[in-house]
Amino acid sequence: ILNKKIVVLPGDGIGPEVCEEAIKVLEAVAERFGHRFTFEKHLMGACAIDATGNPLPDETLEACYYADAVLLGAIGDPKYDNNPAAKVRPEQGLLQLRKSLGLYANIRPVTAYDVLLDHSPLKSERIAGADMLIFRELTGGIYFGEKGRTADEAYDHCTYNREEITRIAHLAFQAAENRRNKLTLVDKANVLETSRLWREVVQGIAPEYPSVAVDYLFVDNAAMQLILNPRQFDVMLTENMFGDILSDEASVIAGSLGLLPSASVGNIVSLFEPIHGSYPQAKGKSIANPIAAILSGAMMLEHFGLQAEADAVKEAVQNALRNEVLTPELNAVSPYTTEQVGSFIAYFV
Amino acid sequence: ILNKKIVVLPGDGIGPEVCEEAIKVLEAVAERFGHRFTFEKHLMGACAIDATGNPLPDETLEACYYADAVLLGAIGDPKYDNNPAAKVRPEQGLLQLRKSLGLYANIRPVTAYDVLLDHSPLKSERIAGADMLIFRELTGGIYFGEKGRTADEAYDHCTYNREEITRIAHLAFQAAENRRNKLTLVDKANVLETSRLWREVVQGIAPEYPSVAVDYLFVDNAAMQLILNPRQFDVMLTENMFGDILSDEASVIAGSLGLLPSASVGNIVSLFEPIHGSYPQAKGKSIANPIAAILSGAMMLEHFGLQAEADAVKEAVQNALRNEVLTPELNAVSPYTTEQVGSFIAYFV
Ligand SMILES: CC(C)[C@H](C(=O)O)[C@@H](O)C(=O)O
Ligand SMILES: CC(C)[C@H](C(=O)O)[C@@H](O)C(=O)O
Repeated sequence: ILNKKIVVLPGDGIGPEVCEEAIKVLEAVAERFGHRFTFEKHLMGACAIDATGNPLPDETLEACYYADAVLLGAIGDPKYDNNPAAKVRPEQGLLQLRKSLGLYANIRPVTAYDVLLDHSPLKSERIAGADMLIFRELTGGIYFGEKGRTADEAYDHCTYNREEITRIAHLAFQAAENRRNKLTLVDKANVLETSRLWREVVQGIAPEYPSVAVDYLFVDNAAMQLILNPRQFDVMLTENMFGDILSDEASVIAGSLGLLPSASVGNIVSLFEPIHGSYPQAKGKSIANPIAAILSGAMMLEHFGLQAEADAVKEAVQNALRNEVLTPELNAVSPYTTEQVGSFIAYFV
Repeated sequence: ILNKKIVVLPGDGIGPEVCEEAIKVLEAVAERFGHRFTFEKHLMGACAIDATGNPLPDETLEACYYADAVLLGAIGDPKYDNNPAAKVRPEQGLLQLRKSLGLYANIRPVTAYDVLLDHSPLKSERIAGADMLIFRELTGGIYFGEKGRTADEAYDHCTYNREEITRIAHLAFQAAENRRNKLTLVDKANVLETSRLWREVVQGIAPEYPSVAVDYLFVDNAAMQLILNPRQFDVMLTENMFGDILSDEASVIAGSLGLLPSASVGNIVSLFEPIHGSYPQAKGKSIANPIAAILSGAMMLEHFGLQAEADAVKEAVQNALRNEVLTPELNAVSPYTTEQVGSFIAYFV
C-alpha cells in the first residue's frame, strides 16, 4: 500500500479538463489496488500570470519539491504568442520548472496502435508495429543558454557539457537494453560543435552497453526517416530543440497528439505530462482527448514501481480504443466527451 | 540567344553522376532553343579536401564569382561524419561558399506529383494537390554563429539581425503574391529571442503585402502539420536550422528525396542544387535519381528568365514520371539507370 502526494498543475486551455480525467483514473487505481493518492493543485502558466503576475509562483515550485510526483496539464495562451513584446510568458514557467527540478530527460513513447492505424496520415503498412522511445534532453541547449536582444539583433546561445549529455545518454542506453537493443543518436554533427560533443560522449559510453547497436543520424535525415521508415527506431536520443521537433513530428505515427504521454525525470521529483499543448480553441468544449494525460498517469505509476497498476491503466486505454470510446478527432461518427472517455477508462481499470 | 557560363561543382558521392545528367539536359535545351551554355567544373567538398586539403579551394570560389550560375551536385563523406575530431569537413566548403556568395535564401518547391502519390509514405488523400515553396534562410543563424569547444563543453551561437530577416522575408512575400497568397512563418517564438525577432520583422513587413495572409506556427507544430495537412501550406518561411529539418521532412510528400531541386539566391550569383545529399552507398551504381539535379537546372533557366525553356524541362520530367522512366527507388519493377533517365528527359526537352 502506497501513500503518494501528487502535485497537479492543470495549467491553461484544455490542461484542467484532461488533468481531471487523469486524476479520476488514478483515483480508480488507488481504490482498486488499495493505495492512497492525494492531489494538490497549484497554478502554473498563463493562469498563474493572470492570478499572480508570475508564470511559476514560488509556492507552486515549493509544492513540487515536496511532492512524490507532478502531473502537468498544458500551458500556453495565444495572447502571448503573437506579442513579441510580452515581458512574461507562460512558457517561462514551464522552462523554469524543468530547470529548477532538474528534469533533464523527457521520455516520450510513440506507438502505432493497431486499432488506430487508419487514423494516421501515414500508410498503415509503413507504421504497423512501430514502437519507439524518444529521449529528449530537457534542461540544456538553446532553450537555456544566454539569450538577448538589441534593437536590431537577437541571439540565443546553445551550450552543452559532457555531464549533461552523459546522464541522459546512460538512461537511454539502459532503456535500449530493456527493449530492442538499438539506440539512434540524432544530431547535426556535420555543422554544430555541440552535436560533435554529443557524438563524442555517446561514442565513449557505447562500449559500456555492448548489446546495444548505436546509429548516428543527422537531424534533417532523421526528420525524413521518422516518416519513411518509423519501424527502424527503438530508442532515439537527442538534444532539447531537436527533441522538441522530432517528438511532435513522431506523434503522427500514433494517429493523434492526444494519445501521447511523457515523463520528465530528474534527481528531485519527476513530472508527467501529455505532449500536446493547451489547445485553447478546444477549451471547455469537452472534445479534448484525455488519453495522453491518463497515460502520463500510467507512466507515473511505473515510476512509483507500480507496474501492475500501470498495466491496468494501459489495458483500460486499449479497451477504450478497441471500443472506439474516443473523442471526436479519433471518432467523428459517434464521439464521446472528455469526461466520458475518462470515466470509461476509470471504470475498466 | 543567351550565352551563359555555368560553373559546376559535382562534389562527392552521387553528385558527379547527377550533375552529368543535368548538364545533358541543359545542353539539349541550349541546342533546341539556340542558346550557348558552357560548363566549367571545379572541386568542392570531400573530393577537394582529398585533392587540395581545402573543401573550397580559392580557384573554385573565384570561378563561382565570375559565373552566371552555379550547379552543385552534393557534398559529404562518411569518413568525416563519424569522426568528431576531424579538423576539416566537406560541409565547411558548402557553408563557406554560401557565406562567400551571400546565398541568403534557399528556395525549395515541394509538390505531390499525381503519378507518384503511391510512392509517398503518406496516404494519397492527404497529400494530393499539395504544393508549397519553402524559403530557408541560408547564411545566418546557428550555422554561422560563433562556435567552439573546451574539453568538457561545446557551444554554438545563433544570431539574427533585422536585415538578414528582412531581405528573405520580402522574397517570400513576393513569391506568395505570385502563388496562393499565403505565407507561414515557422519559428519558436515562445522560447527563442531570435524567433521573436523573426516574428517582429515579418509582422512589420506584412502590411506591405496586403493580399498575403500570414500565419505563425511553432516549429514543433509545423513538423507535425507538414504531415497531417500539407495542403495548408503555400509559402513557408523559416530560419536556417528549422528550414534544414523541415525541408527534408517535406520531401516525403513528393515521394522521393531524389525529385527535389533547390535554388539558393543572393546578390552575386545564384546556386542550384538537389536537396539530397551525396548518398555514398549509391555512388557508381547508376541508381541515383537525376531528376532533382535536372529540376535544379530548370530553376536555373527560370532564374535566367528562360521560362519556356524551364517549362520544357519540367514537361519532359513529367513525361518521364508518367512513363515510369525512373530509377529504382520509384520504379522497383523495371528500373532505369541514372543515365537512361537523364537521356530520356534530354530527348523530350
Ligand atoms: C511550450 C514549450 C516551451 C514546450 C517546449 O518547447 O519544450 C513544448 O513545446 C513541449 O514540447 O513541451
Ligand atoms: C550538408 C549540410 C551542411 C547541409 C545543411 O545542413 O545545410 C545540407 O543538409 C543541406 O540541407 O543543404
